[in-house]
Amino acid sequence: MPVAEVSIVPIGEGPSISKYVKKAIEVFKKYNLKVVPGAMGTVLEGDLDEILRAYKEAHESVLKDAVRVLSTLKIDDRRDKENTIERKLKAIGCN
Amino acid sequence: MPVAEVSIVPIGEGPSISKYVKKAIEVFKKYNLKVVPGAMGTVLEGDLDEILRAYKEAHESVLKDAVRVLSTLKIDDRRDKENTIERKLKAIGCN
Amino acid sequence: MPVAEVSIVPIGEGPSISKYVKKAIEVFKKYNLKVVPGAMGTVLEGDLDEILRAYKEAHESVLKDAVRVLSTLKIDDRRDKENTIERKLKAIGCN
Amino acid sequence: MPVAEVSIVPIGEGPSISKYVKKAIEVFKKYNLKVVPGAMGTVLEGDLDEILRAYKEAHESVLKDAVRVLSTLKIDDRRDKENTIERKLKAIGCN
Repeated sequence: MPVAEVSIVPIGEGPSISKYVKKAIEVFKKYNLKVVPGAMGTVLEGDLDEILRAYKEAHESVLKDAVRVLSTLKIDDRRDKENTIERKLKAIGCN
Repeated sequence: MPVAEVSIVPIGEGPSISKYVKKAIEVFKKYNLKVVPGAMGTVLEGDLDEILRAYKEAHESVLKDAVRVLSTLKIDDRRDKENTIERKLKAIGCN
Repeated sequence: MPVAEVSIVPIGEGPSISKYVKKAIEVFKKYNLKVVPGAMGTVLEGDLDEILRAYKEAHESVLKDAVRVLSTLKIDDRRDKENTIERKLKAIGCN
Repeated sequence: MPVAEVSIVPIGEGPSISKYVKKAIEVFKKYNLKVVPGAMGTVLEGDLDEILRAYKEAHESVLKDAVRVLSTLKIDDRRDKENTIERKLKAIGCN
């Protein structure tokens, strides 16, 4: 089960981008994913295909409203043990 | 046409990772993409779906040989003009 | 006041890296920064110089214990209004 | 000797950002660094302090002309062998 972080940034629509970030978060919530918005990106937990589908829809959805979009997807995936947001936070003493 | 950069890093397989990077690049080359390997990541140019499919296969392919993988996909996408590697390099005087 | 996200990943020390992440977080806490650890990185708020100094020390501190380190610093900086973690979360309805 | 990649993106100044990227590259060239501009970021090779100083000046220099800036610094650092752009490209068969 991968844990991911997504950031989708419209470029050229003015310096305030929360409207676009909120739209992307709404897209993520339609999928079978745990969604944790943060100050520098949104953390997602779930199946790899589901993450990729959600990322693609969010990227295209923001690009519909913005001329240019720079988006980043970071995926942490492992086979040796269960990988979840909760486990990762616990491992660093934050849960 | 988006331009993307991908970095796929195995964690826990020793500090030398070029074997895995080469495997990922071989995966990218199977797709209908322009593939430009660099010192800090591989730049891809092509259709969004093609980029996502290539990224997914490369991520899973490295994860087959490594216990843990951290991979990053960055996509630059715009609707106002053609977006290509060549155009981007030309715009900053490097072509 | 910039808001930043830092991720410091040892490569080649095995797949479990929480020990190193905890060490980096301890370094961040020595600085005059707001420190918010997360599942995919640690968010920092404070002065640009302070962020850069903390990032440098954390990077070097993990590199003392690991053969290879891949670290990422992302900075969001603006001049038009106060930029804080709290404000950013509020703007997307998460506070 | 670390190898780094820097990306400095003005947000809110319109979708064309090459003017800002060129300004950042000019800053990098003032430092004692190898500078390799690419389609998705600029690769730097040199001393860690020099990289951090160049990154800081480039970030602040773009922020002088733009209301908001999102910048990313990725550093690959290792102690077991010489780390250079040339060596990294050679290791993946691209040199």
